[in-house]
Amino acid sequence: MEKEHNLVPGDALWKRHLYRIIYRSDTRLGKLFDIILLSLILISTFIIMMESVPKLDKRFHYVFIISEWVISLFFTAEYWSRIAVLKNKKHYIFSFFGIIDFLALVPFYLSFIFPVTKYFLIFRMLRMLRVFRVFNLLDFMNDGTVIVRALKNSSRKIYIFLLFLVIFSVIVGSLMFMVEGGREGFETIPQAIYWAVVTVTTVGYGDVSPITPMGKFFAVILMLAGYSIIAVPTGIVTAEMRNKRQNLEKICERCGNEDIDDDARYCKQCGKKLA
Amino acid sequence: MEKEHNLVPGDALWKRHLYRIIYRSDTRLGKLFDIILLSLILISTFIIMMESVPKLDKRFHYVFIISEWVISLFFTAEYWSRIAVLKNKKHYIFSFFGIIDFLALVPFYLSFIFPVTKYFLIFRMLRMLRVFRVFNLLDFMNDGTVIVRALKNSSRKIYIFLLFLVIFSVIVGSLMFMVEGGREGFETIPQAIYWAVVTVTTVGYGDVSPITPMGKFFAVILMLAGYSIIAVPTGIVTAEMRNKRQNLEKICERCGNEDIDDDARYCKQCGKKLA
Amino acid sequence: MEKEHNLVPGDALWKRHLYRIIYRSDTRLGKLFDIILLSLILISTFIIMMESVPKLDKRFHYVFIISEWVISLFFTAEYWSRIAVLKNKKHYIFSFFGIIDFLALVPFYLSFIFPVTKYFLIFRMLRMLRVFRVFNLLDFMNDGTVIVRALKNSSRKIYIFLLFLVIFSVIVGSLMFMVEGGREGFETIPQAIYWAVVTVTTVGYGDVSPITPMGKFFAVILMLAGYSIIAVPTGIVTAEMRNKRQNLEKICERCGNEDIDDDARYCKQCGKKLA
Amino acid sequence: MEKEHNLVPGDALWKRHLYRIIYRSDTRLGKLFDIILLSLILISTFIIMMESVPKLDKRFHYVFIISEWVISLFFTAEYWSRIAVLKNKKHYIFSFFGIIDFLALVPFYLSFIFPVTKYFLIFRMLRMLRVFRVFNLLDFMNDGTVIVRALKNSSRKIYIFLLFLVIFSVIVGSLMFMVEGGREGFETIPQAIYWAVVTVTTVGYGDVSPITPMGKFFAVILMLAGYSIIAVPTGIVTAEMRNKRQNLEKICERCGNEDIDDDARYCKQCGKKLA
Repeated sequence: MEKEHNLVPGDALWKRHLYRIIYRSDTRLGKLFDIILLSLILISTFIIMMESVPKLDKRFHYVFIISEWVISLFFTAEYWSRIAVLKNKKHYIFSFFGIIDFLALVPFYLSFIFPVTKYFLIFRMLRMLRVFRVFNLLDFMNDGTVIVRALKNSSRKIYIFLLFLVIFSVIVGSLMFMVEGGREGFETIPQAIYWAVVTVTTVGYGDVSPITPMGKFFAVILMLAGYSIIAVPTGIVTAEMRNKRQNLEKICERCGNEDIDDDARYCKQCGKKLA
Repeated sequence: MEKEHNLVPGDALWKRHLYRIIYRSDTRLGKLFDIILLSLILISTFIIMMESVPKLDKRFHYVFIISEWVISLFFTAEYWSRIAVLKNKKHYIFSFFGIIDFLALVPFYLSFIFPVTKYFLIFRMLRMLRVFRVFNLLDFMNDGTVIVRALKNSSRKIYIFLLFLVIFSVIVGSLMFMVEGGREGFETIPQAIYWAVVTVTTVGYGDVSPITPMGKFFAVILMLAGYSIIAVPTGIVTAEMRNKRQNLEKICERCGNEDIDDDARYCKQCGKKLA
Repeated sequence: MEKEHNLVPGDALWKRHLYRIIYRSDTRLGKLFDIILLSLILISTFIIMMESVPKLDKRFHYVFIISEWVISLFFTAEYWSRIAVLKNKKHYIFSFFGIIDFLALVPFYLSFIFPVTKYFLIFRMLRMLRVFRVFNLLDFMNDGTVIVRALKNSSRKIYIFLLFLVIFSVIVGSLMFMVEGGREGFETIPQAIYWAVVTVTTVGYGDVSPITPMGKFFAVILMLAGYSIIAVPTGIVTAEMRNKRQNLEKICERCGNEDIDDDARYCKQCGKKLA
Repeated sequence: MEKEHNLVPGDALWKRHLYRIIYRSDTRLGKLFDIILLSLILISTFIIMMESVPKLDKRFHYVFIISEWVISLFFTAEYWSRIAVLKNKKHYIFSFFGIIDFLALVPFYLSFIFPVTKYFLIFRMLRMLRVFRVFNLLDFMNDGTVIVRALKNSSRKIYIFLLFLVIFSVIVGSLMFMVEGGREGFETIPQAIYWAVVTVTTVGYGDVSPITPMGKFFAVILMLAGYSIIAVPTGIVTAEMRNKRQNLEKICERCGNEDIDDDARYCKQCGKKLA
C-alpha cells in the first residue's frame, strides 16, 4: 500500500482542494469521487467481461465502445489530475498504484495505433486492482492489512513449502509417468506432473486420472499425503496471525509480563499502568 | 437469534399458558410442542424433496398434497398463535424468525390464486431455517453461537479475503482467456473466471480444464497459489475462535471492560484488581 | 477404548497366563500374540479385498477359501479364549471391541446356513477396527487418544456445524433446482442437493456441474462460501487441540498464574513450587 | 539435513580450499559454485522432462544427449571432489545427500551397460532433491527446518490419523461396493476404496462417482465426514507449529530445561529465575 501522507500536494489552492478530493475521503466531495471511481472501475470490468461474449458483443457493440470511451477519458483525466496536484510527481508515477493506473490506460491509446488484440485485455483488467485503493481510502482495509501482513511475514515459509511441493510433485509425476506408461494423460513427464499437482492440491479435475491398479495405488498414497500436507500452509499462516494479534514490543516494567494486548492500558498480571 | 425475553406474553391466562408452550420448552407440553414442530418441519422438507422426483410424485401425489395441506394448516395455526399470545406483536412479526415463518406460509396460500410454479419452492424450503429456533429452545445452540460469533467477528476479514479472491480470479480468468483462446470452456471471460474459481477453491469439477501446455502451466501455478491461499480463512477463523475462548463471563466491576483474558488478574483498561 | 484393567482375569493359573498373553503385551509371548493377530487381521482384510476381484478370485479361489477357514477358526479360538480367561465376562462381551470381535465372526458361521451374500462382507470388514486394539496394546495410541479426545470435545460444535452445512446445502440445492430447471444432474431436488454437497465440500466430482450462466454464477458464490466455511471445523478442532495441551485445573497459589503446562513443577511467572 | 560441521576437511591445502568452495558458501567462489550447481540441477531436470515429450525429443535429441553428458560428467567430478576433500569419507557417502548424489549418477553409467529404460528416470529425477542442499548452504532453510521440525514432531499423530483414514476408507469403500453393486467404477472392493479415498480427501476426480440414489446418499455422508476430518491434520500441525514458536534459544542454566515459554520468568522445572 502506498503511504498517502508521503504525497505532498502542490502549492496552488485549487491543487490543495483537488488533492483532498482525489487522495482523501474526509470530505463529501472526496467520498463522492471515491464512489464514482469505484462504480466506474466495476462497470468497466463488467463491460470487458461482457465484450468477450460474442452474443452480447454483437447486440451491445456500440454501447460497449462508447462506455469504454467515456470511462477511459475519465480515467485519463483522473490520472493527469493525480499527477498535477502533486509536488513529488515521480513518487506517485512509480508507485504501485501509479503504475497500475498507467497500465490500465495504455491499451486504450495503443488501440489507435495497433489493431486491437486480446492481449490488451489483461492490462485493462488490471484496473480491478484499483478497487483496493478506494477501499483503502474508505478505511475498510485495516483488516485487509492484517491478512497481508500475516501473509508477508510467513511468505518465506510458504515459498519453501511451495518449493517442497513442486519438487514432490515433479518426483511423484515422474514416478507416475513410469507406472502409467504412455497411457492417456500420462504421455509425457510434464503431463504427469500436471496430474500430480492437480491431485496433491485436491483440485482433482479428473481430465487425467490413473487407469492401472498400480497407478491408482500410487494415486491413493499421493492423495493421503496431500491431505496431510495441506495442514502445513494453514499452520504457518495461523501461527503468524495469532502472532500479529498482540503487541510484541510492549512489556510490563514491574512484573515483566510480555503478553500485553494492543489496547491494554494496565498490566493484566500486576495492575501496573503501562507507559 | 431473537431474544425471547423481549416477547412479553399477553394478559389473559390462556395466553400465558400458550406462550409457555410455544415460546418456552421448560414444561412437558412445551417440549412436546417443540418435538412435534421439529418433526413437521423435517417431514415437510422431506415431502418437498420427494415431490420433485417425478416417479415418486406420480405414485404418492395425493399423499403429498394432503400432507402439505395438513402441515400448512398446522403452521398457519401456529403462526397465528405466536402472534395472538404476544403483547408486542410487531416485535415478532418483523423479527428474523417471524419473517421466515411468514414466508414459509405464503406459497401455500398464493397457490390458490396463482398457478403453482417451482419458484414457490425456495420459500417453502426456507422452513428448514425454523429448525434452528427449535434447537435454540432445546438449549442445543450454545456451541452454535460460539461458531456464529467467531464467524461474525471475523466476517470483515473474510469479506476482504473474498474480495481479494474474486479480483484474483477475475485477473487469472482473463489471463487464461487469453492463453486458451476460444478453446472449449474458455470461450468467454466469464467462463474463464468460472474456471478460475472452480480451480482456486480446489473444487475442480473438470467440466472445464486447460488443454494447451501453456494453459496447464498457468493452471498449476494457480492451484499452488490456491493451496496456499486456503490457509487464510482458516487462519482468520482459528485466531478468532481462540480469541473467543477468553472468559466470557468476567467483567470489570469498575469500568465495565468485558474483554478479559482467562489469566488476567487486573483489568487491562483501568487496572482494577479482578475478583 | 475399553479400560483393560477393568477386566479381571479368572482364578486358575493358566487363565492368568493366557490373560497376560491375550490382554497384555509386556511379555514376549504377549507381543508375539499381538503381532500374529495384527498380521492375520491385515491378511484377512487383504483376502476379502482380493476376493472381490473376479480375475483373482477365479485364480486363487481355493487359496482364499482355505485362508478364510484358517483365520476364522483362529479368530473363533481367540474369541472364546478372551471370554474364558475373564471373570467379568459380560463386561468384555458387551464392550466395543467385544461386539466388533463377535460381528467379525458371525458372517463366517452364518454362511453355513444362509447362502453367502455380499452383505456379509461389511461385517467381515469390521475386523479392521481390531487393528486399533492391537495398537492400543503396543502403546502406540497415546497420540491417537489426543486426536480422539479433541474430536470428542469438539463433537457438539462439529455436529452443529454439519447441521448448518446440511441446511445450507438443502436450500442452495433447491435454489439450483429452480435455476437449472430440469437440466441434466438437476432433475430432482435430492439430485441438486447432492450437487450442492459435492460443491461446498470442494470434492467436485464433475458428474454434475452447472450449465446455464445463471447456474454457474450461483455455483461460483457457493464455492467461495464453501471455501470460507471450510475454516470452521478446522478452527474448532485446532482451538480444542491447543486447549488440551495445558493443564486446565492447575493454578499457582502465590501469583494466580493459570497458564501452567502439564509437566511444570514451578510457576513460570513467580517461581513458586507447584503443589 | 546433514550437519556440515561433522565433515572435517582433509589435510592438504588444496583440499581445504576445495572443501570451502564445495561445502561452504562464505566465499565468492563458494557462492559461484552453488549457483552453477543449482542451475545445472534445474537444467538437468528440465531436460529430463523435455526428453519425455516425443515431439521435442525428435527435434532436440542430440542437444539433450550432449547436455546430459556434460552435466553427468560435471556431477561425477563433483561427487569425486566431495569425497576427495573429506577425511571422514564414509560419513558423507552414507549420508542422505551422499546417497542421493550417488543415485543421481548411477543411471547415466548403467546406461552404457544396460539398454536405457524409463525406470532409470526416477533416479535421475532424484537429483532435484539436491536443490535443498544448495538452499541449505545459502542460508535459506531456517524457515524450512521449522516446517520440517513441526512435521516431524507431529508425525506420530499424523501417522495415526492416516491409519484412521485408511481404515475408514476401507470400510466405507466396502460399504459402497455393497451399495453400488457391480456398477461402473465399483466393480471390486479395491476400486471402491480408491473411490472412497478420492472422495474423503476432497480430490474428487469424478472418474468414479456414485450412480444410485442410495450410493449418492452415502457419498454425501462421506463428503461431510471428510470435510470435518480435514480439520484434524491441520489442527495437529498448527498446534505443533505454535508450540515451536516458543523461545528456542532460552535454556535454564541450572537444570538445562529447554522447554521455556516466551513469557516465562522462572524455570518451570526447577524454579530458577531466568536471566
